[in-house]
Amino acid sequence: MKRVITFGEIMLRLAPEGYLRFVQADRFQATFGGGEANVAVSLANFGYSAAFVSKIPAHEIGQYCVNSMRRYGVDTSQIVRGGERLGVYYCEKGASQRASKVIYDRAASAIALAKREDFDWESILDGADWFHFTGITPALGGELPEICLDALKVCKAKNIFVSCDLNYRKKLWTREEAGKAMATLMPYVNLCIANEEDAGDVFGIHAENTELTKGKINTDGYKEVAQKLKDRFGFEKVAITLRRSFSANDNDWGAMLYDSEGFHFSKTYSVHIVDRVGGGDSFGAGLIYALLDGQSGADAIEFAVAASCLKHSIEGDFNCVSAAEVKALAQGDGSGRVQR
Amino acid sequence: MKRVITFGEIMLRLAPEGYLRFVQADRFQATFGGGEANVAVSLANFGYSAAFVSKIPAHEIGQYCVNSMRRYGVDTSQIVRGGERLGVYYCEKGASQRASKVIYDRAASAIALAKREDFDWESILDGADWFHFTGITPALGGELPEICLDALKVCKAKNIFVSCDLNYRKKLWTREEAGKAMATLMPYVNLCIANEEDAGDVFGIHAENTELTKGKINTDGYKEVAQKLKDRFGFEKVAITLRRSFSANDNDWGAMLYDSEGFHFSKTYSVHIVDRVGGGDSFGAGLIYALLDGQSGADAIEFAVAASCLKHSIEGDFNCVSAAEVKALAQGDGSGRVQR
Amino acid sequence: MKRVITFGEIMLRLAPEGYLRFVQADRFQATFGGGEANVAVSLANFGYSAAFVSKIPAHEIGQYCVNSMRRYGVDTSQIVRGGERLGVYYCEKGASQRASKVIYDRAASAIALAKREDFDWESILDGADWFHFTGITPALGGELPEICLDALKVCKAKNIFVSCDLNYRKKLWTREEAGKAMATLMPYVNLCIANEEDAGDVFGIHAENTELTKGKINTDGYKEVAQKLKDRFGFEKVAITLRRSFSANDNDWGAMLYDSEGFHFSKTYSVHIVDRVGGGDSFGAGLIYALLDGQSGADAIEFAVAASCLKHSIEGDFNCVSAAEVKALAQGDGSGRVQR
Amino acid sequence: MKRVITFGEIMLRLAPEGYLRFVQADRFQATFGGGEANVAVSLANFGYSAAFVSKIPAHEIGQYCVNSMRRYGVDTSQIVRGGERLGVYYCEKGASQRASKVIYDRAASAIALAKREDFDWESILDGADWFHFTGITPALGGELPEICLDALKVCKAKNIFVSCDLNYRKKLWTREEAGKAMATLMPYVNLCIANEEDAGDVFGIHAENTELTKGKINTDGYKEVAQKLKDRFGFEKVAITLRRSFSANDNDWGAMLYDSEGFHFSKTYSVHIVDRVGGGDSFGAGLIYALLDGQSGADAIEFAVAASCLKHSIEGDFNCVSAAEVKALAQGDGSGRVQR
Amino acid sequence: MKRVITFGEIMLRLAPEGYLRFVQADRFQATFGGGEANVAVSLANFGYSAAFVSKIPAHEIGQYCVNSMRRYGVDTSQIVRGGERLGVYYCEKGASQRASKVIYDRAASAIALAKREDFDWESILDGADWFHFTGITPALGGELPEICLDALKVCKAKNIFVSCDLNYRKKLWTREEAGKAMATLMPYVNLCIANEEDAGDVFGIHAENTELTKGKINTDGYKEVAQKLKDRFGFEKVAITLRRSFSANDNDWGAMLYDSEGFHFSKTYSVHIVDRVGGGDSFGAGLIYALLDGQSGADAIEFAVAASCLKHSIEGDFNCVSAAEVKALAQGDGSGRVQR
Amino acid sequence: MKRVITFGEIMLRLAPEGYLRFVQADRFQATFGGGEANVAVSLANFGYSAAFVSKIPAHEIGQYCVNSMRRYGVDTSQIVRGGERLGVYYCEKGASQRASKVIYDRAASAIALAKREDFDWESILDGADWFHFTGITPALGGELPEICLDALKVCKAKNIFVSCDLNYRKKLWTREEAGKAMATLMPYVNLCIANEEDAGDVFGIHAENTELTKGKINTDGYKEVAQKLKDRFGFEKVAITLRRSFSANDNDWGAMLYDSEGFHFSKTYSVHIVDRVGGGDSFGAGLIYALLDGQSGADAIEFAVAASCLKHSIEGDFNCVSAAEVKALAQGDGSGRVQR
Repeated sequence: MKRVITFGEIMLRLAPEGYLRFVQADRFQATFGGGEANVAVSLANFGYSAAFVSKIPAHEIGQYCVNSMRRYGVDTSQIVRGGERLGVYYCEKGASQRASKVIYDRAASAIALAKREDFDWESILDGADWFHFTGITPALGGELPEICLDALKVCKAKNIFVSCDLNYRKKLWTREEAGKAMATLMPYVNLCIANEEDAGDVFGIHAENTELTKGKINTDGYKEVAQKLKDRFGFEKVAITLRRSFSANDNDWGAMLYDSEGFHFSKTYSVHIVDRVGGGDSFGAGLIYALLDGQSGADAIEFAVAASCLKHSIEGDFNCVSAAEVKALAQGDGSGRVQR
Repeated sequence: MKRVITFGEIMLRLAPEGYLRFVQADRFQATFGGGEANVAVSLANFGYSAAFVSKIPAHEIGQYCVNSMRRYGVDTSQIVRGGERLGVYYCEKGASQRASKVIYDRAASAIALAKREDFDWESILDGADWFHFTGITPALGGELPEICLDALKVCKAKNIFVSCDLNYRKKLWTREEAGKAMATLMPYVNLCIANEEDAGDVFGIHAENTELTKGKINTDGYKEVAQKLKDRFGFEKVAITLRRSFSANDNDWGAMLYDSEGFHFSKTYSVHIVDRVGGGDSFGAGLIYALLDGQSGADAIEFAVAASCLKHSIEGDFNCVSAAEVKALAQGDGSGRVQR
Repeated sequence: MKRVITFGEIMLRLAPEGYLRFVQADRFQATFGGGEANVAVSLANFGYSAAFVSKIPAHEIGQYCVNSMRRYGVDTSQIVRGGERLGVYYCEKGASQRASKVIYDRAASAIALAKREDFDWESILDGADWFHFTGITPALGGELPEICLDALKVCKAKNIFVSCDLNYRKKLWTREEAGKAMATLMPYVNLCIANEEDAGDVFGIHAENTELTKGKINTDGYKEVAQKLKDRFGFEKVAITLRRSFSANDNDWGAMLYDSEGFHFSKTYSVHIVDRVGGGDSFGAGLIYALLDGQSGADAIEFAVAASCLKHSIEGDFNCVSAAEVKALAQGDGSGRVQR
Repeated sequence: MKRVITFGEIMLRLAPEGYLRFVQADRFQATFGGGEANVAVSLANFGYSAAFVSKIPAHEIGQYCVNSMRRYGVDTSQIVRGGERLGVYYCEKGASQRASKVIYDRAASAIALAKREDFDWESILDGADWFHFTGITPALGGELPEICLDALKVCKAKNIFVSCDLNYRKKLWTREEAGKAMATLMPYVNLCIANEEDAGDVFGIHAENTELTKGKINTDGYKEVAQKLKDRFGFEKVAITLRRSFSANDNDWGAMLYDSEGFHFSKTYSVHIVDRVGGGDSFGAGLIYALLDGQSGADAIEFAVAASCLKHSIEGDFNCVSAAEVKALAQGDGSGRVQR
Repeated sequence: MKRVITFGEIMLRLAPEGYLRFVQADRFQATFGGGEANVAVSLANFGYSAAFVSKIPAHEIGQYCVNSMRRYGVDTSQIVRGGERLGVYYCEKGASQRASKVIYDRAASAIALAKREDFDWESILDGADWFHFTGITPALGGELPEICLDALKVCKAKNIFVSCDLNYRKKLWTREEAGKAMATLMPYVNLCIANEEDAGDVFGIHAENTELTKGKINTDGYKEVAQKLKDRFGFEKVAITLRRSFSANDNDWGAMLYDSEGFHFSKTYSVHIVDRVGGGDSFGAGLIYALLDGQSGADAIEFAVAASCLKHSIEGDFNCVSAAEVKALAQGDGSGRVQR
Repeated sequence: MKRVITFGEIMLRLAPEGYLRFVQADRFQATFGGGEANVAVSLANFGYSAAFVSKIPAHEIGQYCVNSMRRYGVDTSQIVRGGERLGVYYCEKGASQRASKVIYDRAASAIALAKREDFDWESILDGADWFHFTGITPALGGELPEICLDALKVCKAKNIFVSCDLNYRKKLWTREEAGKAMATLMPYVNLCIANEEDAGDVFGIHAENTELTKGKINTDGYKEVAQKLKDRFGFEKVAITLRRSFSANDNDWGAMLYDSEGFHFSKTYSVHIVDRVGGGDSFGAGLIYALLDGQSGADAIEFAVAASCLKHSIEGDFNCVSAAEVKALAQGDGSGRVQR
């Protein structure tokens, strides 16, 4: 069984029911999420051995969080238990012209205050086939950029394939900070994943003439961005997700993979959104699964996009779909007919 | 008041809330449903005297089930109380490209193990104008094909109009078993109801070139299927529902009735789905209501399609609409403006 | 800070969860709403000083109602506490071709039985910049037409700007009654707000050839109606909302403002409806905010329509959006991208 | 099967969840209740034919109400459909030293405005063994005292046994009004049911030295009250319920029946309260069941008290217990051991 | 880390909310439970390595069940996936004099139809310190008595300590069947656990003069039963739980352990019940934990009773408490003061 | 109208439903609470003008918090809006021997990081009759001890009566830190409120021989503590609450007030707990209300204890009772009979 290790933060996600706004709520759906945790859960649901690495308080809320991943089969044995607080994020679901809103309360979380000595990467990465992290992890600050580097060096030594989703968060660091820190880590990365804006935000690499808010996709522009990323950092593969947002309910969703065989564009799905948070993470997980599974670049990007298409129909950060369900969609049945 | 008797199974329906997947649930909406029970509830809601016949355990869960129909005015006095278990079905609502999923747990239910002597059809059918069953009832096995035949013979003797919805369920029996058993019952049936696939699954009768999953409708093909059904079994009327599935949220929905005056195609509705389970049953109920009400074939098919169009907007198996509401839609107001 | 006074009825709103029909419910969402209360809440959410004037029983259900407005910052100190009952309305959410349904139980409410001496308008209106009421208030009968007139006369004396939303409710009075009563009040009104049908229902003023149920908009017709309203009553400004209803889920929504500078048509939004009750009220509130804020007619109508566009995405009667959110939409970002 | 007719009002009952106060609520449990409806439901649950007679609006909320009784098997065919409103009552559950609170909003309900010609008692009472009403019904005013009298005269003519629960409600009428109106009806009553205070409130008949709020029971006092009631109105039987209230959670509960064989005191139950509303009605239903069933006075009072003891453990007005469950408790098993 | 293997059935548990009766429900809390699964979850919560062995369908409901245990850290890797159905049990919570009610729908479940070849006990029991099962497992019939014997023989060979909770279920088999089957298995059992009635039901061993329903405890009688059990089957240890049931809300709870050092009676707790289903299982788990932990008999019985005392305060079958919480109670703090 | 200002922290309170443990939750009840906010809400519910002073983020979660107090009529106009985070506390309700558990996540909240210049006490305290804070406020650290001192000096200058609830929280500071900081503030305090342990924890003042966990109350000991507190700091009045905890469900509750007229012991209530968090705060609010209202010491302590007795029956931190309800209980009606 393939084994993937992901490293980052997981937060308690508090969401009002349905389309209620924060100020209307009187209870919150309590789930958990975070870029790398979402990838681990998705891979566990696909049937891989997936371990999530983080630092989580030893108290009951921390335990509740650990249980939320264990439930889906994630290996939580490498999580360091300690520290005071678990980060929280508040998530309000948008509709029509009203956008979803996310408020983070993650400062001073256990993972953000973690120390290099908390993680014994030689042991953690033992037996791993793949290591995944996102730009959010170093953005948490403290010793995290160095901890990431520690992990990546061990990956290199152990010849573990590394993927990184750039995932720029402007609330966590400036573009300058991100660019500098990420540039240090990129040389260890084999697969770089980005959305339409990340390459520009983090590295100042832009697709020309792409007007994102108007939803027009400039195919050549994306190729150009992928090429520039590869040129600058020597990535083996670059994947870019392409989202056109018509409203909070309706998006088009697709992606491109650039590898040694060239550019592979997936089909585009018109998705009616149940919950789009975690959409990018489910794409990353799908891509990791497919590539580790030995699929071709063309097949892998279809699998990854189908996986993340389905995520948009699922509540919460975690993508609760099986590999078989993803394959069925990737191979063409999106009619939504009842399965009895 | 017109009186309709329906016969079959009713199950406890367990559904996670909203769009949650089974593995995410921690509570289930508990309703009840089954093809023939759904028809009875719909007819009671339209104002007819509707009795549902089945066998249901005497324990409290069975009582809960009986109450669920009594609530809507169904005559439950002909239900045999006994046996050990009430069938269960789990129903997960799909969205966008993710299909709804139904898992049946109906084996060894009280009705599946019922005996011929449990039902005194002479008494049950006394005063009835119409008898309705679906292909699911004989598919439950045991003595049910014979029990159906018992009922149909009494209908013939009493000159009660009989409708049957083919409703092929591949999890219950093979096409061969279905074809053989149903062929025995069809000679007693006056109105045959089918969806796009049933005629092919049960009797090997196909519309040529109809590509269901791509959603293209071949009008001539449907006429051909109806004609062949009528030719083979001598039905007075044949009704076929036409569904085009764009996604789990959006379908087109219409139907055709073939009677002595020819082929009547209804208008087609673009439905935004709340819950499509029971859609076919609500069509059957609408057709029974309209035909018993003395409506013309053209009017009846519009009433039936309007009834089932509305069902798609209603949670649960039961179609909770009045005849007046259906008429209003059939006569043209589908704009959904608030009624104050 | 600008201060607006609104006067009318507020009711307990009882709504089944999600898309459940009344007969399926076993609990009701309990919120509150009423045309003028909705306007006050909306203005308080925009940051204005907004006082709602009404008569509400002194018992705990009345207190619950008062609290529901206080929560959003509405000044409730001018509400008269007394009388026996708080009006109730039952609200069932429609979907697809099934319309939403509202059942009023408002007869003999405390406000409907209020007396002229209950309200000391000199004191209530002290310091106010704007007074708003709708046609529903006089329609409640009893002494309410006179109480409205009392208020309007004080407004005139104090030079307070007055807006009135015609809001014709056929369940409350006939067209004749409405026309007569409203004609008495209109001379005191500066801004008249109406939807497509109100001018015709109340004053017999019609846009020619406008076929509402088919959703075609006759621009010239609306201009004509506005012109006739202005001509007959001498309004400074006339605003008309334009709704095209495709289904209970999907509407187009826009509006027109006619003022001394001419006709200003807003952009049209395609809205995916969460809850459209209170849509017109949120428009009125948006218009009051923008005009009191000193915006041009063209900007004000865009603000008002953007505010009410957002209301369609929000559960309950109250429009829980900030002025900043409305401005962002009015200025062009309706893509619904997640805000982190 | 024994047939009982009850006549009165049924209201929508709106209750916050759990122990929430009204001002904390944001949803209400929606059930239905009313003295005579509660008795009918209880008798239907015991297996009798029980018809409830009232006037209920034809709209969907009225239908929802009718369905709520039909669900438990009550014969609702004698209900007159019409009028404008269904009464509402708000019910907040108390705990510890905080008492439960009930706010009625029942004025001008369909039944309160009903007319004598609405009810054809000859037809309604056809085939009945027993007729039951409470003091609430005439207290609703309008023509209801006369309608009650109409019914009672037909009962007398048909030799139908009549029970009346005095059920004094000070919010509905004064003691003087109650005393006068009830005195007119009492001569037709065979069984009079009262709680500790009713006889005093309605007829000025008091048990000496009974200090209710301190929870001390004066056995001789109750005998005296029953004797005086019997002497004044010639009742065949008088039943008095005895409640000692220690807190909103804990009560002692028992009763006494006075018949031709003397005074029968039941055992006393210490009840831990889930919901005590409807406790008296469940007692009445238990007594009617047992007496119609031919039980002795001593057995009947035990059955009635056991039935109402169980009611205190059940949410809502309706007593959802079977006759078998009541018998088991009356015969001694109150240990609450799990039944598998 | 100590490793315990438990073997048996786990079912979907469907429970109405709060104190609602089945017939009042419209949703069910969906959890899972079964004697041996409950023990495994409890031990995992205490920090042991606990594996549950069973056969569970491969479909999503089966997966949901597996996840429910994985969440608490149970090792589910030894579960055989296959078969058609997962057993269901319906559980209605009692209050006051109304007992809780359990309705089983477990016939023909995957585990009940499991085959001897489904389980490779050599492999499953590898590394185990303890094996636990209850009388329910062989009672499921089919090949289960033999499968149990297979397991026990391997335990003997591997010198694994074996505990068995007699857990007689009259709905599953007769006393005769139970006595015969269990007698075959007992020689392999080291620790026998029973409640007050099991020894009598299964083996005809009775404590003299113990009147269970009246709640009087005959200490000498329990000693006698334990002695007889030990004498007949050669158990190393015998534990008997002692419950006095005052009502569905209030029980006294204690236990006795008989080992080579004599009889150890625990303190008795007065418990206010939240959910008592699984109480016995939590006792078994507590005892296994304490004995494997090397505690003395006197300490172990206190730990076991404290663990199960806490279980009564927890919703669902699973005992979600830590070993530290149990120790704190066993050592004396039952005052329930808030822990901040 | 009397005006009271309270100053401190308010947090989001997240609580699983009913008796669920944290690890079982999948949603949280979202309310707000904090010692001084609770007092303000209680006083507003009693009809006083109550302003709460704090620093709360400007984002939507902060707004939600502000609205939660505004709803009950608290004056929130003096709250400083700014900072990053709102503190959170997780609250799990205990039952029987299982204690309630509170986990704080309040570090680095907006108020904890507030600056002296954030608060203009001259303006804030303008028109106030009373100022209240608790020991939690200075315990938050940063500049809060000085900010408290700033406020107290203005109180002295303005002759505003000051009350302080010692409220020692060992998670926030050590006994030494508390003792030192509080000693600086005490000279400005007129009324000192404490529970059984606070005086010892903060100032090392102990009642001799009081064994708290065993629930025995040493009356003389409390007098002694009050006397010592008064002697050391010159308080005008000292109030001590007396709790005996039998289980998480059942407590005895009373208090003592020591003033210039001597020691006043209240009656003791046996409370069946719905939610005891905020019990002490509701006592403080009751005492402030009664004393400001001019009640005698003996009456005031009865009012305060009755208020907090009722709080134990109410969900959430806020005591939602009216002054009339408290008076009714203080004057003797604790029987919990239904109020219609």
